[in-house]
Amino acid sequence: MKKHNFYAGPSILPEVVIEEITKALQNFAGTGISLASISHRSKEFVKVMDDAQSLFKELLGAPEGYSVVFLGGGASLQFAMLPYNLMSKKAVYVNTGTWAAKAMKEAKLYGEVVEIKSEDYFSLPKGFDVPADADYFHFTTNNTIYGTQYKEDFDLDIPVIADMSSDIFSRKIDVSKYDVIYGGAQKNLAPSGVAFILIKDELLGKVDRKIPTMLNYQTHIDKGSMFNTPPVIPIFAAYQTMLWIKANGGVEGMEKIVAEKADLLYGEIDRNPLFVGTVAKEDRSLMNVCFVMSEGNKELEADFMSFATDKGMIGLKGHRSVGGFRASTYNALPLESVKALVACMQEFENSKK
Amino acid sequence: MKKHNFYAGPSILPEVVIEEITKALQNFAGTGISLASISHRSKEFVKVMDDAQSLFKELLGAPEGYSVVFLGGGASLQFAMLPYNLMSKKAVYVNTGTWAAKAMKEAKLYGEVVEIKSEDYFSLPKGFDVPADADYFHFTTNNTIYGTQYKEDFDLDIPVIADMSSDIFSRKIDVSKYDVIYGGAQKNLAPSGVAFILIKDELLGKVDRKIPTMLNYQTHIDKGSMFNTPPVIPIFAAYQTMLWIKANGGVEGMEKIVAEKADLLYGEIDRNPLFVGTVAKEDRSLMNVCFVMSEGNKELEADFMSFATDKGMIGLKGHRSVGGFRASTYNALPLESVKALVACMQEFENSKK
Repeated sequence: MKKHNFYAGPSILPEVVIEEITKALQNFAGTGISLASISHRSKEFVKVMDDAQSLFKELLGAPEGYSVVFLGGGASLQFAMLPYNLMSKKAVYVNTGTWAAKAMKEAKLYGEVVEIKSEDYFSLPKGFDVPADADYFHFTTNNTIYGTQYKEDFDLDIPVIADMSSDIFSRKIDVSKYDVIYGGAQKNLAPSGVAFILIKDELLGKVDRKIPTMLNYQTHIDKGSMFNTPPVIPIFAAYQTMLWIKANGGVEGMEKIVAEKADLLYGEIDRNPLFVGTVAKEDRSLMNVCFVMSEGNKELEADFMSFATDKGMIGLKGHRSVGGFRASTYNALPLESVKALVACMQEFENSKK
Repeated sequence: MKKHNFYAGPSILPEVVIEEITKALQNFAGTGISLASISHRSKEFVKVMDDAQSLFKELLGAPEGYSVVFLGGGASLQFAMLPYNLMSKKAVYVNTGTWAAKAMKEAKLYGEVVEIKSEDYFSLPKGFDVPADADYFHFTTNNTIYGTQYKEDFDLDIPVIADMSSDIFSRKIDVSKYDVIYGGAQKNLAPSGVAFILIKDELLGKVDRKIPTMLNYQTHIDKGSMFNTPPVIPIFAAYQTMLWIKANGGVEGMEKIVAEKADLLYGEIDRNPLFVGTVAKEDRSLMNVCFVMSEGNKELEADFMSFATDKGMIGLKGHRSVGGFRASTYNALPLESVKALVACMQEFENSKK
């Protein structure tokens, strides 16, 4: 049976990306050597790395003055590296849930953290003041666990740092309003094992503390992400995904299909009396669609999960901290999978009539 | 033409490992989902992670009281994590070349470093005294650039930390003499993107400094390497390589074939008048065989490189800091490849007669 992969991450990648990794594992770029066994200093892989960095900036429409690096350790390591490199005294963190809270926790080791938070995580803080003397403002554009998403850029007078782990390349942004855009690649870009960091060059070199070599962004910028052996397969895969994005209309192309999928699924959640969305409508994520059984139907949760699983739906279980259901609708998820889920919700409704 | 992969790392992996990754990319463990897109929290991948940790200890013959974690960021990140977690005041570093020097550099951020060094990097320091009041003793078992290798365990009264990036599972060791064994997996174990760390549990929790969550070994031990999304494909591959090692006689089995390959190649270097080994004989690495053209034949270097390349030899160029040639003969390199290289050296000799 055809499986529909709604995992929140690692998550579905375009089929052509899996095909390209598979081919490269047998013979990478005509070298006769597997991608798993090729030197990262071979000219063939150096080209992949260079092209991946350029294409990353091209797809985002980044102006001059930014560098891109690809590093191991995940976005979680960035939670520590960001304040290590950029925080002198004070930083502002918008706490939209687990990931933002984890980022904030690390920053507290390096200075004062000003926290901005809404009453609960099911709606986003908006209209708040940002202290002008902070070193930077940090926010998570999309929260995968609660299913909230900022769909507009902040325009602030202090440096803006955005964790875009789960919605990179899904929405047009104005890069000039950001100073750092980073994230783990394992949602919209690649298998797990690599993080992307786009950083404004002029931001670095302003803190006094000594930074371990591997935690210093300047190290990796100077060496083009080749200071140490980079995660070759995930970076190759990220590059293939970016080629696929480019071939499919770039970020604008993604934006259209992402909106179509989200409209379809939220439409069904709002129409179907058995289900209800968990997030304030204006803050709904277009990447992670969270919903629960409606009042009076709570006892059907396990029943629907089993019904959906039987129809090939994978990864629908909500994060353990919120329960219910979560359908992740990243760039690579085919419209067909959303249609299959909607059909499944309708069939389930009919079976209960 | 058949290629012979002598890269120093990332380097050759067993063919069956490439086959298993390839199969899992299409359908991982019968899930119908690609290994590239499977949740790290799926029960199928959790089993791989658990089994990989157990098998790592089993193959090394580790006694009770040790934990294994698999982390992103490479061995280079460990250079900083080790002193961050383990150094209160002073540590001893044996400087056997580039990698040891890099490890040492990071330790200096956290305290006093006592350096032990031989006159040059072509022989190993031996018979030195180790200060009894140091927090630990750090050494690199095998230096990939100069081609030196410690082939015996140190037996010291202070904790022993060994970077085994390039010779893990190639030689029987007595784990009880070590407190940390770590390394990047991209030589003897997996594609790049994951580091292994075996650590004696009682070693942790003794420093006063605050450690960022991701840099704290205890975080990863407590969460079974699942605090954040681990590098799924490299860990799967490492597990497959360990299964291959087990099926081929374990570390003892590797040791035999490694010795056979090294004997053959060093034998030819010592016999062939055109070539000469660069390392003191007793310190020669069984993993990275370094050699140059002999006196009077220096001008043949480019000629031999081109001759060997035409015969399918890949990755023979010595590291840029030492020049000449380096044939890496890791566990997975077939004996056939060493025979092909030896034949190539003999043919080259005959062509010059």
